[in-house]
Amino acid sequence: MEKTPSEAKDTEHAPRAVDWENPRVASILAAAAKCFAENGFSATTLAEIGKELGLRKSIVHYYFASKGALIHEVQSYAYHRYLDQVRASLGAAEGSQTKRALSAMRSLRETIRKNPAATALNIEVWSASRRDPELKRRSAGLQKDARKLIGEGIAEVLGADASKIPQLEGLTTLLLAVLNGLAIAEYVEGDDAKTNEAFEVFLFVVRAGLKAVLSGGE
Amino acid sequence: MEKTPSEAKDTEHAPRAVDWENPRVASILAAAAKCFAENGFSATTLAEIGKELGLRKSIVHYYFASKGALIHEVQSYAYHRYLDQVRASLGAAEGSQTKRALSAMRSLRETIRKNPAATALNIEVWSASRRDPELKRRSAGLQKDARKLIGEGIAEVLGADASKIPQLEGLTTLLLAVLNGLAIAEYVEGDDAKTNEAFEVFLFVVRAGLKAVLSGGE
Repeated sequence: MEKTPSEAKDTEHAPRAVDWENPRVASILAAAAKCFAENGFSATTLAEIGKELGLRKSIVHYYFASKGALIHEVQSYAYHRYLDQVRASLGAAEGSQTKRALSAMRSLRETIRKNPAATALNIEVWSASRRDPELKRRSAGLQKDARKLIGEGIAEVLGADASKIPQLEGLTTLLLAVLNGLAIAEYVEGDDAKTNEAFEVFLFVVRAGLKAVLSGGE
Repeated sequence: MEKTPSEAKDTEHAPRAVDWENPRVASILAAAAKCFAENGFSATTLAEIGKELGLRKSIVHYYFASKGALIHEVQSYAYHRYLDQVRASLGAAEGSQTKRALSAMRSLRETIRKNPAATALNIEVWSASRRDPELKRRSAGLQKDARKLIGEGIAEVLGADASKIPQLEGLTTLLLAVLNGLAIAEYVEGDDAKTNEAFEVFLFVVRAGLKAVLSGGE
């Protein structure tokens, strides 16, 4: 896992090494993710995040020099937790190769569906990244990491067949777009039945597409 | 097209009927959409929107009682313009039925790809709708309208074959999710080549899926 390099360790109130294994740091990041997802970046203060945990603002400030620094770290933290879940989803799939690929896609969707706060946080990040080029750069990097991980996972699941799919990267980009797009539809409309049906249609057409490619039929 | 009902017509500075056919109203809505997409809702003032057009703030205020009212109207305005383009896309498709359906999907994607400001505006709307239930309600309604229109368009294009596709609503929800998800990927990463490839994969698998359904093969 990436960690922010330690800076100025011996100066009080200067940015500290952000150690995700430190329970206090992890609790601040989790509380910040919750506050940001519920109220947005601009309406959330370091004091409110501290209040969630019964901590003074100065303690939050001791670990994170500014709200900007905390936003960047929350984004990395939330995304790496998501990537951990992606890894777990990809590893758990069973059955034939195509079935395993589809089952891995289904677990990815479940991971996201069960975590609507992550979608709310993503929307905040996208909105804020217009005014914060560093946030945008980091978002693009994390999105790329997710695509790489999912692409490798699907390739591994498909085994030798992966080489027969010339557009595996396109499929991965598509899968991420579907996951994001459906999460947004749920966020706006709150209708799981409709989005679940859409995801089943996606799995159906992907299966038909994989079949066509793997049988050499198209 | 929906228009806000006229209220208190004879009171100076009270909300006026919002008449999209009025060139000044249309120019204010277009300028507001541009400012909101570039700088977000919270960082944009009515004065700045007026400045874009060389108008005093009081003139903007004459047509729109508050920034909140303007945000709601910009959302409807931008969405209805988008729906007009959707109608045009669906009408222009030619060829066999499956080909026409795919070609209509491709024009929808082009419509959105050529208008990145609409994605930026959507992200603002999603972010703000957390704090503005009326905005969320309107977003959900407009999303529903878009889905209905696209669903009817695809059904019309597919003709008699439409009845053989049991999950046309799921397909439409999926298509909208793909369009939104790819627009976000472009917004964050700015890489058209990757998202174009993903959309081609989408059209390929949809074609394979339609083929499987229409031939009764699955």
